[in-house]
Amino acid sequence: MKSIASRQNPWFKRVREAIREHAEEIVLEGPKMVADAVAAGWEPIAVIGAQGAGGGGQEIAFSQELLDALSDTKTSQGVLGLFHRPRNADVFARREALVVALDSVQDPGNVGTIVRLAAAFDASGVALLPGCADPFSPKAIRASVGAILSVPVARVTHEELLGAARPLLYADGAGEAVPPARNAVLVFGSEGSGVSEVIRSQGRAIAVATSGRVESLNVAASAAILLWQAFAARH
Amino acid sequence: MKSIASRQNPWFKRVREAIREHAEEIVLEGPKMVADAVAAGWEPIAVIGAQGAGGGGQEIAFSQELLDALSDTKTSQGVLGLFHRPRNADVFARREALVVALDSVQDPGNVGTIVRLAAAFDASGVALLPGCADPFSPKAIRASVGAILSVPVARVTHEELLGAARPLLYADGAGEAVPPARNAVLVFGSEGSGVSEVIRSQGRAIAVATSGRVESLNVAASAAILLWQAFAARH
Repeated sequence: MKSIASRQNPWFKRVREAIREHAEEIVLEGPKMVADAVAAGWEPIAVIGAQGAGGGGQEIAFSQELLDALSDTKTSQGVLGLFHRPRNADVFARREALVVALDSVQDPGNVGTIVRLAAAFDASGVALLPGCADPFSPKAIRASVGAILSVPVARVTHEELLGAARPLLYADGAGEAVPPARNAVLVFGSEGSGVSEVIRSQGRAIAVATSGRVESLNVAASAAILLWQAFAARH
Repeated sequence: MKSIASRQNPWFKRVREAIREHAEEIVLEGPKMVADAVAAGWEPIAVIGAQGAGGGGQEIAFSQELLDALSDTKTSQGVLGLFHRPRNADVFARREALVVALDSVQDPGNVGTIVRLAAAFDASGVALLPGCADPFSPKAIRASVGAILSVPVARVTHEELLGAARPLLYADGAGEAVPPARNAVLVFGSEGSGVSEVIRSQGRAIAVATSGRVESLNVAASAAILLWQAFAARH
């Protein structure tokens, strides 16, 4: 096992870059998450343990100081997995389910929570239009609570989404009360400004009925209610 | 107008204490939030503006450096309101609605989001059992997006909740599929360990049906779905 305690070490720099930029390489935190990813077929570039922890079979160990420098939470539990960033998956594969699309949803916690909801309510996948937070950022991965390993996600353009040849619906403050159960794309926009004009002009609005005592719902709350309704209608 | 630029100033120390501890005094951020609070009948101890901003009619102004030192986000927009902490409200007032209770929900973002959902779906109020985040912390207030001004909230003991003489239900991984529409207490526990044993022994379990591809739902997502169901059943 290679023990590393220097911030100048290339492995340390590479992992730090993957946490910060999550461009070509990404990091998963915690022994369970890393093991689940490997079980799901993800191939690790490196699995990094804690110096002195022993027994984990990792080829590389960072000192506690280096691990602390990399983690902004207590969740790493001494194990980090460096992986290639997964390629765009086919989010449109299953017509018997809904495709979730996000339009300028900038908060990584909301993106991760919606990936988790897509797993919970068996969506075909999550399509990310421009302006969304990266689903492979550490914060989004944590919010997905493992669902990022099983839910197809892809960055798409507006043209690609419109070319998917599915009925297009978007969540809004007013509109139809019941979402379709299957074979449709359901778009959620940013809390401030909703979906893009091109979605608005091509799609139909779906609304969650509220008391009127709030101006809007949190985007993840709105997704929870509409995806659950579609799931319940299928079962 | 009193202009303040020193960290030793008693007003600065008092506001900082209210932001950090939110014990007897609490802070609301942003001109709209402070104005809405005053309109809702909250009496400010002080409204603090930004030095040089002018025209706001505030009696105290902090230098930009002091304002930056107090805010962990960009949301203060140069106005802070110092208020007495509201007393426990009567969360059980309306039998035609549901009472939401939270049991050891530690994340202030989840507490604030559920206060917002209570407004959206017209709950009687939000009862906070021991172990919950403070609904008047800056992060919970922000997550409530103003709903903290209109939703009755109260800290309660398990005994007080059980003494409320309402049917008691709690969200769980398995249980009845349909929540009651009115005249009941609906308890949400922590994501890790659910509700307390005393709630479990006295109440009935309600569950949100899922695909089984996730171990659990985020507590705010679960609350969104169940509170919306109850609201929809009443309308």
